[in-house]
Amino acid sequence: MYNIALFGAGRIGKVHSVNISEHKETRLYSVIDPYLEGATKLAEKHGAKVQTTEEALADPNIHGVLIASATDTHADLVEQAARAGKAIFCEKPVHLDIKRVRQCLEIVKEHDVPLFVGFNRRYDPQFRRLQERMEAGSIGKPESLMIISRDPSAPPSEYIKVSGGLFRDMTIHDFDMARFIMGEDPVSIFAQGSNLVDAGIGAAGDIDTAFVVMKFPSGSMATISNSRRSGYGYDQRIEVHGETGVLTAKNILEDTVEQWGENGCVAAKPEFFFLERYSTAYKAEWDHFVDVLAGRAVPECGGYDGEQALYLADKALESLNSGQEIQL
Amino acid sequence: MYNIALFGAGRIGKVHSVNISEHKETRLYSVIDPYLEGATKLAEKHGAKVQTTEEALADPNIHGVLIASATDTHADLVEQAARAGKAIFCEKPVHLDIKRVRQCLEIVKEHDVPLFVGFNRRYDPQFRRLQERMEAGSIGKPESLMIISRDPSAPPSEYIKVSGGLFRDMTIHDFDMARFIMGEDPVSIFAQGSNLVDAGIGAAGDIDTAFVVMKFPSGSMATISNSRRSGYGYDQRIEVHGETGVLTAKNILEDTVEQWGENGCVAAKPEFFFLERYSTAYKAEWDHFVDVLAGRAVPECGGYDGEQALYLADKALESLNSGQEIQL
Amino acid sequence: MYNIALFGAGRIGKVHSVNISEHKETRLYSVIDPYLEGATKLAEKHGAKVQTTEEALADPNIHGVLIASATDTHADLVEQAARAGKAIFCEKPVHLDIKRVRQCLEIVKEHDVPLFVGFNRRYDPQFRRLQERMEAGSIGKPESLMIISRDPSAPPSEYIKVSGGLFRDMTIHDFDMARFIMGEDPVSIFAQGSNLVDAGIGAAGDIDTAFVVMKFPSGSMATISNSRRSGYGYDQRIEVHGETGVLTAKNILEDTVEQWGENGCVAAKPEFFFLERYSTAYKAEWDHFVDVLAGRAVPECGGYDGEQALYLADKALESLNSGQEIQL
Amino acid sequence: MYNIALFGAGRIGKVHSVNISEHKETRLYSVIDPYLEGATKLAEKHGAKVQTTEEALADPNIHGVLIASATDTHADLVEQAARAGKAIFCEKPVHLDIKRVRQCLEIVKEHDVPLFVGFNRRYDPQFRRLQERMEAGSIGKPESLMIISRDPSAPPSEYIKVSGGLFRDMTIHDFDMARFIMGEDPVSIFAQGSNLVDAGIGAAGDIDTAFVVMKFPSGSMATISNSRRSGYGYDQRIEVHGETGVLTAKNILEDTVEQWGENGCVAAKPEFFFLERYSTAYKAEWDHFVDVLAGRAVPECGGYDGEQALYLADKALESLNSGQEIQL
Repeated sequence: MYNIALFGAGRIGKVHSVNISEHKETRLYSVIDPYLEGATKLAEKHGAKVQTTEEALADPNIHGVLIASATDTHADLVEQAARAGKAIFCEKPVHLDIKRVRQCLEIVKEHDVPLFVGFNRRYDPQFRRLQERMEAGSIGKPESLMIISRDPSAPPSEYIKVSGGLFRDMTIHDFDMARFIMGEDPVSIFAQGSNLVDAGIGAAGDIDTAFVVMKFPSGSMATISNSRRSGYGYDQRIEVHGETGVLTAKNILEDTVEQWGENGCVAAKPEFFFLERYSTAYKAEWDHFVDVLAGRAVPECGGYDGEQALYLADKALESLNSGQEIQL
Repeated sequence: MYNIALFGAGRIGKVHSVNISEHKETRLYSVIDPYLEGATKLAEKHGAKVQTTEEALADPNIHGVLIASATDTHADLVEQAARAGKAIFCEKPVHLDIKRVRQCLEIVKEHDVPLFVGFNRRYDPQFRRLQERMEAGSIGKPESLMIISRDPSAPPSEYIKVSGGLFRDMTIHDFDMARFIMGEDPVSIFAQGSNLVDAGIGAAGDIDTAFVVMKFPSGSMATISNSRRSGYGYDQRIEVHGETGVLTAKNILEDTVEQWGENGCVAAKPEFFFLERYSTAYKAEWDHFVDVLAGRAVPECGGYDGEQALYLADKALESLNSGQEIQL
Repeated sequence: MYNIALFGAGRIGKVHSVNISEHKETRLYSVIDPYLEGATKLAEKHGAKVQTTEEALADPNIHGVLIASATDTHADLVEQAARAGKAIFCEKPVHLDIKRVRQCLEIVKEHDVPLFVGFNRRYDPQFRRLQERMEAGSIGKPESLMIISRDPSAPPSEYIKVSGGLFRDMTIHDFDMARFIMGEDPVSIFAQGSNLVDAGIGAAGDIDTAFVVMKFPSGSMATISNSRRSGYGYDQRIEVHGETGVLTAKNILEDTVEQWGENGCVAAKPEFFFLERYSTAYKAEWDHFVDVLAGRAVPECGGYDGEQALYLADKALESLNSGQEIQL
Repeated sequence: MYNIALFGAGRIGKVHSVNISEHKETRLYSVIDPYLEGATKLAEKHGAKVQTTEEALADPNIHGVLIASATDTHADLVEQAARAGKAIFCEKPVHLDIKRVRQCLEIVKEHDVPLFVGFNRRYDPQFRRLQERMEAGSIGKPESLMIISRDPSAPPSEYIKVSGGLFRDMTIHDFDMARFIMGEDPVSIFAQGSNLVDAGIGAAGDIDTAFVVMKFPSGSMATISNSRRSGYGYDQRIEVHGETGVLTAKNILEDTVEQWGENGCVAAKPEFFFLERYSTAYKAEWDHFVDVLAGRAVPECGGYDGEQALYLADKALESLNSGQEIQL
């Protein structure tokens, strides 16, 4: 049984706390959060302790840490955990500043601890099956990839201000997905975007709607279509076109009930948001991290992946600002 | 070029008139209808004559007749046309009284003219492909068949009174379809029905909603689900389950446009009614009849098929009235 | 925290054991099974005891029992548990002999304990949503109901021999579903069936393919289509047609990935069998039973429902054997 | 009855010849094609004459011309027809050189004859319904548009050499569609492409796979995804995302038959190619042109539209070659 210290008792921390507790090889050992009331409540629910960062990292009973705290604390915690010799599960992103990410990864490397970066979508059963079937050759070599990724509705502009912007906050998942599906790093990137959804987002200096085009060494290409608001739930689809056909992962609808009547054939909307759509993925990525803890696997998605996704986000922004395609 | 005399200038006669005119081997030669104004208008549109029944059947230029007149005139016209040596395309049913049908078929046999009975649905590309794939063995031997057949909305009760009732008027198509798909005649039939859609239909002594169950010599079974009103267009679906899977023919929707929004994912309704859904089938059955005219084929769907479908309708009614399964 | 004694450590007992353990208000207290090894293993997994029937029913710590043992033990255990004053969750059927069911229900009534009969499909989110929307009037009054219920593949004929036959073993769920959706008891029933899937089933005196037609007091009707083998997974669909349209609950597919290529557009099969399709339903029915335990609800699906579903199964068999529609 | 001279007796000329003949207000008067055998055969089929270009344009009986000849003859014929005062239906493109297009449009303007440019997809019932519903406000203001346009398989490289390249030959339709849907001209364009499908296409100096991103004055954006080969038929889809949801036009499948079995649920492929998919569109655009001939309408899609689509194609190529987004 591996003891896990959870940093962050917020929304995503809660999701992880359940998966940690329910996994037969892991126990939620402690919760660390500057907001003590939240930490206490979550700890109590799972029979865990409340600790400070220092206590947790000094505690020899702890085998691994899950970092789901505020974004700007990730890199510091990763470094401290690395120095303490703990296995690390870090929510994306490691940091919003790529230089800081690289420093941090150096420290991790030095201390030779496993680091898993939580790009949860790689563990979505739909996308995984698509990726596996593509890799198994069912459509031949991939030629063009389309990632459609739209949130149900826009976050408050306060969130936008600390988010790092659309590319670093939202598209970063899609950059990682493109790398995951295509199995190679892109050689060029172009981005175009607009502020259409919410004027507050524009006032915060960000865009809310974007198209990105990337090209890969093999000549294959990918496009990402983003919006902060769909109006019909969480739109998470992938199409990959290859030599002999296309593989497409469609949305999961809320239910399979249809009503046919005067106004047409009405089916349910896609599942609402990431907590619903990716609940299975959160469990599966934890399964993988337990394999890492147990020495049965090395992180499938590690520091380099976190760095690359952020790098693409930075370059997308550079392209958006310059109107030029950026060579990578 | 075969000259065709068309009996009946009503709704279905008009459909056939276009197909006759547009076919490169047939010409609409004359239109016969007691309602002279309708006959004249339709004839003019296609550069055809108006004739009386006697003139048409005596006219040596006419190779074939298409009988799309009032139901109670079909059998008389079939007999007269047979005696005149014309090839006959007769809209279903030959007659609502099965004894009259049998007499009529005797006359046809005596004069050895080809008779095609217009069960148009056999020529629907969806149902035909389903039947062909089943026959080709794609699901092994058929085991159970489900026919779903619902009209968009109920006809006036005046129509009901002369229709012969639900089974002879509407289900007759489904009886023929069951025979077409299963390739054998049933050995038993059970029917249950209700008057739910329109009280006027009940007042006219008829039902508007029904389920029928038939068993075939091989042990396979079929069910028919009928209603005079769907509320969402013409519902025409078939499922045939076999040893290794199911073949299903779904409705054709009015268009492929979907709207996803707050209220769900809305697709179009099925095509409205038989004129829309079976327009291709009407053309294809005419193609077949031209093959018959040209001696390239014998009627795929002839007098025996017309008789059997009516026989099943009669026996369904007997079952409905007696609460017993009827052995055939 | 309610302590639960689980009778039966087989496949379905295991499903329930997890739901009991994971529910925050219940604890798996003991496992009872004549096959001690199985009981021990399951008990250990959940930190529960192994008990005999007598021990369990005499144990004042136990609040409720879940009966998932062999079918022929259900009625005896229900009676004993009733006498011991325990709240009872009984897997369907209470007994295969309706007289025995009625006796048993008398005892339950006498001792005034809550009895929930586990018709799990009522808790399937798809069917429940369909039922709720129908009840909310979204399609007006229901007129015809179609239940399609096909297993992926036939069970061994050894199982068939003790199963009570297709109607009592498999269709019983569909009888309950028809009552659940239509909200009334049928007034007549007709059944037709065949042995097509496996000759061993026929040798065991049973059928494996069936159609059932029922009529309700309102004049509405229902049909059930059953097969012991689909060839494509578990086929569990419902269509209910009403005054203004249809509500239909479609299968849940294994994933949302499609491949389009030379051979068409290929989507996944329906989920394999009841453990997959109804995993959510098993959890939800347990939630309901906990509400019963806590006095927050009375059993939505009780002894009368168990009795009625079995009664319909018996009458379906009577109809099959007599070729007559049976009045109820 | 309007007499029409058809220039070009090739594949697309034949499609138009049928629509001209079948329309109740137009007659195929003459066919003009340097390949006399083809012209003669097509003319005979429709009871039309064979003429030379000079004869046709001098013939006072001719009201309109349909130019479906080789691409490099379009502009010359448009000019000659304009000078002869004929109403003009010109297949896209007017010319591959935009300067020549502009000259040509000047001549048309001078002679004040109606010119319709045959962007057939505007008349596809799916896309039209989508456009109409968007314009009617069903999703609010449009924010992002995705056009997916893939041919079933690549043309021979001989064709590629005279085609003008992917953007001018194939994407030109998508440029027009983007303008049609969004109702405004883009302000910037970016294109990326590869030669992945057929090395012969690369050897001919062209690409066969492309992504294009355009931005419009309102800030809304569009992306086009192209390939010369899909492997599953003609892939012609549109998604337009707006303030309150998305409208999407899906492919039309070859039939509605599905087979469910061990290998999944298999539906038909999309219709094969443009002759199948757009047969209704060809008819509908002819209906519109007849309205123009009759003075009931002015061309909905005229010279400016032809020019703009070609201009976007040119600019896409400029972007592809420069790696820069081009301001328009």
